[in-house]
Amino acid sequence: MPDDSAAPVRAGVPEHGRVPKYYAVKTHIAALLPDLREGELLPTERELALRFDAARETVRQALRELVLEGRLRRSGRGTAVAGPKLEQPLSLGSYTEGVRRQGRVPGRSLIGLDRHPAPARLAGELGLERGDPVWHLERVLRADDERVGLESTYVAVERVPRLESDFDPDSSFYSYLHERLGIGFGDADERLETVLATPREALLIGTPPGLPMLLIHRLSRDLDGRPLERVRSLYRGDRFSFTTRLTGWR
Amino acid sequence: MPDDSAAPVRAGVPEHGRVPKYYAVKTHIAALLPDLREGELLPTERELALRFDAARETVRQALRELVLEGRLRRSGRGTAVAGPKLEQPLSLGSYTEGVRRQGRVPGRSLIGLDRHPAPARLAGELGLERGDPVWHLERVLRADDERVGLESTYVAVERVPRLESDFDPDSSFYSYLHERLGIGFGDADERLETVLATPREALLIGTPPGLPMLLIHRLSRDLDGRPLERVRSLYRGDRFSFTTRLTGWR
Repeated sequence: MPDDSAAPVRAGVPEHGRVPKYYAVKTHIAALLPDLREGELLPTERELALRFDAARETVRQALRELVLEGRLRRSGRGTAVAGPKLEQPLSLGSYTEGVRRQGRVPGRSLIGLDRHPAPARLAGELGLERGDPVWHLERVLRADDERVGLESTYVAVERVPRLESDFDPDSSFYSYLHERLGIGFGDADERLETVLATPREALLIGTPPGLPMLLIHRLSRDLDGRPLERVRSLYRGDRFSFTTRLTGWR
Repeated sequence: MPDDSAAPVRAGVPEHGRVPKYYAVKTHIAALLPDLREGELLPTERELALRFDAARETVRQALRELVLEGRLRRSGRGTAVAGPKLEQPLSLGSYTEGVRRQGRVPGRSLIGLDRHPAPARLAGELGLERGDPVWHLERVLRADDERVGLESTYVAVERVPRLESDFDPDSSFYSYLHERLGIGFGDADERLETVLATPREALLIGTPPGLPMLLIHRLSRDLDGRPLERVRSLYRGDRFSFTTRLTGWR
């Protein structure tokens, strides 16, 4: 996979040469990281402030950005070197498979499974009439017991009538559809964007509010082309990247 | 394309029910937006503070988040309703094509075209020896004269020896390779993540520093599978989303 550090990207310094102080400190701190192991603690804010001749608040801003970018993480009262971002393939495979392929243990925690009437747009997307019953399955996504995302799945009750009694919410919904109900996936449209976590999402995922997140909207269809599920998956922007292979130029 | 507003996503309110004041104000302001046209000005901060019984600073924080998310944009001394995010397909097609397909006029402004020796990792990615000469082509991406991104392309000088004299930097590099040099694209690996703009990037693109951006790393190969170019494309997170169609489940 392409890695940014490979490319001689220009330093983040504007051509006019006036570098904000916090950014200079951020660059200095970032330069320390290659020599540290994952999980190793950084010097304290006070020590960094002394070393780089900067105010504590300036050091704090530099650390905050490095945390938001996933290069550092909070650890007790200090700041530690973060591990690399997980690379999740954009594919019809499930979250479970993607995480496992990276040697991590995937997990899911049920937040809620509710049944309610489909509002107009969701009904349109799922090929239903407005008011037809849909399930809303909401789960926190975990990797090695770290909470990394939040997933909402919407599916017509008529397609999976026994979801509430039949389905283990810590397992893969795709395996359930495929192995238990014989429903295969044909294709899916996805749209990916960056958003800020809401207070509720931040609380459920355990992130600072305002952390940039990656949000993936998916609408998938079965092998007959019938709409199957609408999924909204929110991933920590500091912990995930997404990969894809493009083919078929002309 | 799946649209978030279609789904009955839970409101951003934590289950414990304590809603930060700025978030309540943000929700109130967001509720005003569907009734306003693109480009229409919002009431002033002062009016919003009075209307929602909140401090000016609280209103400012709510507006700031809506701007970072691309739902509002700064307009002179006020705040206006932003247009929808551009939806760019993740495909081997060029930026130019993607923007044109949405009825916008694409453009590019040259920041620099430099020739330098490849550092070890870039050389490895491009199948070169360390120190072999590579071009670094850096351009600001525009859509309808709005600056929306920054693109760095790295390519071996031996593959495009006349790039400096032969290539119009406001045109598509892919068309140049394909039409002028007969080089076809085979496939590419992409990795997408969210990062914060550096001060230099923010200045070149004209965004507030610290705005969440979408960064796409691409390594593409020609029809013989030889590495061709390494691209680092940075897009405004408030202006872009990326779409893809997934197929081939089992």
